[in-house]
Amino acid sequence: MKLTSPFLSAMVILGINTVNAQNLQKITAYQKLHEQDIISEYLQFVAIPNETKDSANINRNAAFIRDMLGKRGIKAELLSTDKSNPVVFGEVNVPGATKTVIFYAHYDGQPVNPKQWAPGLKPFEPVFITAPAEQGGKIIDYKTGDKIDPAWRLSGRGSADDKAGVMCIINAYDALVKSKINPGCNIKFFFEGEEEKGSTNLAVIFRKYKIRLTSDLWVICDGPRHISGKKTISFGVRGDVNMSLTLYGPKRPLHSGNYGNWAPNPGLMLAQLLGGMKDEQGKVMIKGFYDDVLPLSKTEKEALSKVPAVEPELKKELGLAEPEGGARPLVQALMLPTLNINGFASGNVGAQAANIIPVKAEAVLDLRMVLGNDAERQVQKVTDHIQSKGYYIIDREPTDEERLQHAKIIKITHEPGYNAQRTPIDMPLAQLVIKAVQSTVKYPIVLSPGSGGSLPLFVFEKELAAKVITIPLVNYDNNQHAENENVKVSYLFEGIETIAAVMQIK
Amino acid sequence: MKLTSPFLSAMVILGINTVNAQNLQKITAYQKLHEQDIISEYLQFVAIPNETKDSANINRNAAFIRDMLGKRGIKAELLSTDKSNPVVFGEVNVPGATKTVIFYAHYDGQPVNPKQWAPGLKPFEPVFITAPAEQGGKIIDYKTGDKIDPAWRLSGRGSADDKAGVMCIINAYDALVKSKINPGCNIKFFFEGEEEKGSTNLAVIFRKYKIRLTSDLWVICDGPRHISGKKTISFGVRGDVNMSLTLYGPKRPLHSGNYGNWAPNPGLMLAQLLGGMKDEQGKVMIKGFYDDVLPLSKTEKEALSKVPAVEPELKKELGLAEPEGGARPLVQALMLPTLNINGFASGNVGAQAANIIPVKAEAVLDLRMVLGNDAERQVQKVTDHIQSKGYYIIDREPTDEERLQHAKIIKITHEPGYNAQRTPIDMPLAQLVIKAVQSTVKYPIVLSPGSGGSLPLFVFEKELAAKVITIPLVNYDNNQHAENENVKVSYLFEGIETIAAVMQIK
Repeated sequence: MKLTSPFLSAMVILGINTVNAQNLQKITAYQKLHEQDIISEYLQFVAIPNETKDSANINRNAAFIRDMLGKRGIKAELLSTDKSNPVVFGEVNVPGATKTVIFYAHYDGQPVNPKQWAPGLKPFEPVFITAPAEQGGKIIDYKTGDKIDPAWRLSGRGSADDKAGVMCIINAYDALVKSKINPGCNIKFFFEGEEEKGSTNLAVIFRKYKIRLTSDLWVICDGPRHISGKKTISFGVRGDVNMSLTLYGPKRPLHSGNYGNWAPNPGLMLAQLLGGMKDEQGKVMIKGFYDDVLPLSKTEKEALSKVPAVEPELKKELGLAEPEGGARPLVQALMLPTLNINGFASGNVGAQAANIIPVKAEAVLDLRMVLGNDAERQVQKVTDHIQSKGYYIIDREPTDEERLQHAKIIKITHEPGYNAQRTPIDMPLAQLVIKAVQSTVKYPIVLSPGSGGSLPLFVFEKELAAKVITIPLVNYDNNQHAENENVKVSYLFEGIETIAAVMQIK
Repeated sequence: MKLTSPFLSAMVILGINTVNAQNLQKITAYQKLHEQDIISEYLQFVAIPNETKDSANINRNAAFIRDMLGKRGIKAELLSTDKSNPVVFGEVNVPGATKTVIFYAHYDGQPVNPKQWAPGLKPFEPVFITAPAEQGGKIIDYKTGDKIDPAWRLSGRGSADDKAGVMCIINAYDALVKSKINPGCNIKFFFEGEEEKGSTNLAVIFRKYKIRLTSDLWVICDGPRHISGKKTISFGVRGDVNMSLTLYGPKRPLHSGNYGNWAPNPGLMLAQLLGGMKDEQGKVMIKGFYDDVLPLSKTEKEALSKVPAVEPELKKELGLAEPEGGARPLVQALMLPTLNINGFASGNVGAQAANIIPVKAEAVLDLRMVLGNDAERQVQKVTDHIQSKGYYIIDREPTDEERLQHAKIIKITHEPGYNAQRTPIDMPLAQLVIKAVQSTVKYPIVLSPGSGGSLPLFVFEKELAAKVITIPLVNYDNNQHAENENVKVSYLFEGIETIAAVMQIK
């Protein structure tokens, strides 16, 4: 889940709606009664490896979700193209309903590097922990049937991003039915299997299954709630595109004594290239990088101004003395495009380091985009910048001839990526969703006009002319995309309550 | 073997000495007869893992060498301190000899990353290959007893650096004895086990065993012959010291959408720091970096000027369009201190890359030094430079308090390292060694006043007041310190002939 930043948020204080209070009580009671079954099934689900490029296991996940739906009496099937990981699709027609809402989550996960996980934690062996690993959390010796503390966290790749979405959506429907509460709208289930590789086949799937995907609204369950822990609705996302860079040194690794000062070091070249892309204040120095950005509307600026400051707590939690950009608030930083170094590597460090001049240096960049930016155009700006530094640009390994002709060679590849999207908060259906979510809690929920994270929501608009609203469900400190990913148990149960409330929209 | 650069060389044309021609023929004949036994033993030796920090296997190597000596009737023992990997020491007194020569090699190897080796090649499963992996070499289906082609290469960590030295020294003595040729001098064998971690205990061992290590000359067998393939003697080395740098970002990995433009990226900080250490021409921009360098003497300058240019062939072989420093010859580049990036890492690249802001970025630097430089002083210059960029410097993980006080924190550690050394070419014993090596070939051998690589030879001078000459034995394209290390078989046999000739010095 590339989704939701909880920070770019407008706190909108709503009157507390108590109409659904009785139904909420029923859902809560149902959950308490079936807690063990719900969690047991979720542990099995998270244990299935879900790296987005691991087709065999992706198919096992899809089959598991289809069975989850089947057990609840929902007819389910797999939608796919020749090339894509399958979408698990299900449908429930409600007599008398006039609206159709499609609930979206994705079951694939980001790649894992098991070595980076904390001792005892493994990406696909979910366990309960008392707190995040980084805060000294301990593994709980849990056995099936033990009482589950809602303050525990469940650790594992996908536990938060975004199997939690699948789990809450399916169990919300189940809880309604078992509690004899009628859904207010027709419900469709859409569980994607390649969000973490950029949803590259989503447009094709939308075109292929356009009729069956007719709806009044898509509800995207992905990403974290606001840092305050309050329930959150988000109305937009940043776009996203990744670039991979490879620079070349000597054809074979060289002894750093015998060739040092003579053979060029690709690591140094990459450091100089990346180091020159941003200034000390974090401003991207690439020509025209910010030029396409559409200015914020008055409403958006006003919304932003109401977002409470989270910076002091965040700095303390993350151990940061000074954010990039200095005193600029986080919410403003998220309204601009980014250039992030996801990672780089050359030679070895630590115990494997050797005194050599390495053969290559690699980096992966992540470019987030806001309204006005275009993925291809943004990639081109970075590419043009690299070219202006004297690089010969290719999209494959260099030939021997090219190596002898060009002192600075770089391989650049990029994934397709997708642009930003935004939905108006004052749309009538949006107001119904806000009321439904608000009905589940007594405090005012958080409304965010746009998120720092990304989802390919512009594809929904473009291909299906769909309306899209995001309801993030998990804790903000879930380590999504990284080692030690986790979800707080209480958020799973509150997520079921949230979605069950939205399913009652008429 | 951090040793020898073949490039900083003076080609000295010597009269061809044929005095030992008959003895050489005997040695060559002996080798041909015992080729299978010699190679079979060497394959067993290279198969013993020898990463310098792997104590258990280091001890297996030492025991193997002790047995090699024992089998040849040489009394051998292990010398060590509480902390050190053992030195394997042996001694042969020759009746009537007036000189004592100690032959040195080291049996430990640089760290390995098996994933980086070419398909089919494994660091500690030696095999014969038709050519270097980088040049499309194929693995040979060799079975014990098959005829061995001297053009083959033997692949494995330590095969060249520097088990080859151990192998040639022991077999040279064996070949002399079995061919009924008397050594001309008393011979001592000294095989070190921690050269690749900077010979940190060598001084202590020298002090502890000072009397037994009395000699007229040390002959160091380590490093590659000149790129021309000609036999080489080297009279000096650069010094060497490693530094490790770690920069810190947020305490936990962050979603690059939710925090991008706000949380500082340690990879970017490291790129900016490293990128600013050298200019585009490869000149180190650190204050005073070149200040200590002693100017070359007239003789040294003259020697350098006679070194034949290898740059055109080397550029072609290595696939380099333009060396660092532009048109500056390699031999001149090697007469200056270096700052090399051995490796760096932050987050992940390739299939494991994820859209995150990583928690840290690491780099390992290798600083080579020439006469005049001092390891501690050189490290201090780099450290001062980093401090001048606003970094708070520590030698351990930062505390939470430090993280909140300092925006730029770096952990810097460094190994002890050692300084450069040089021996006068006109020393009488040096002239005897030159004649001995010259007697084994018809072409003029290469004499190098100083090498690009490093060995702690200054310790020999300081602790033992010893004279030191280096005779490198292996092919220059051996990938020492890196993946796909290999030795050309013909160099092993020629190495045995070389050392057998030196052992006849009177």
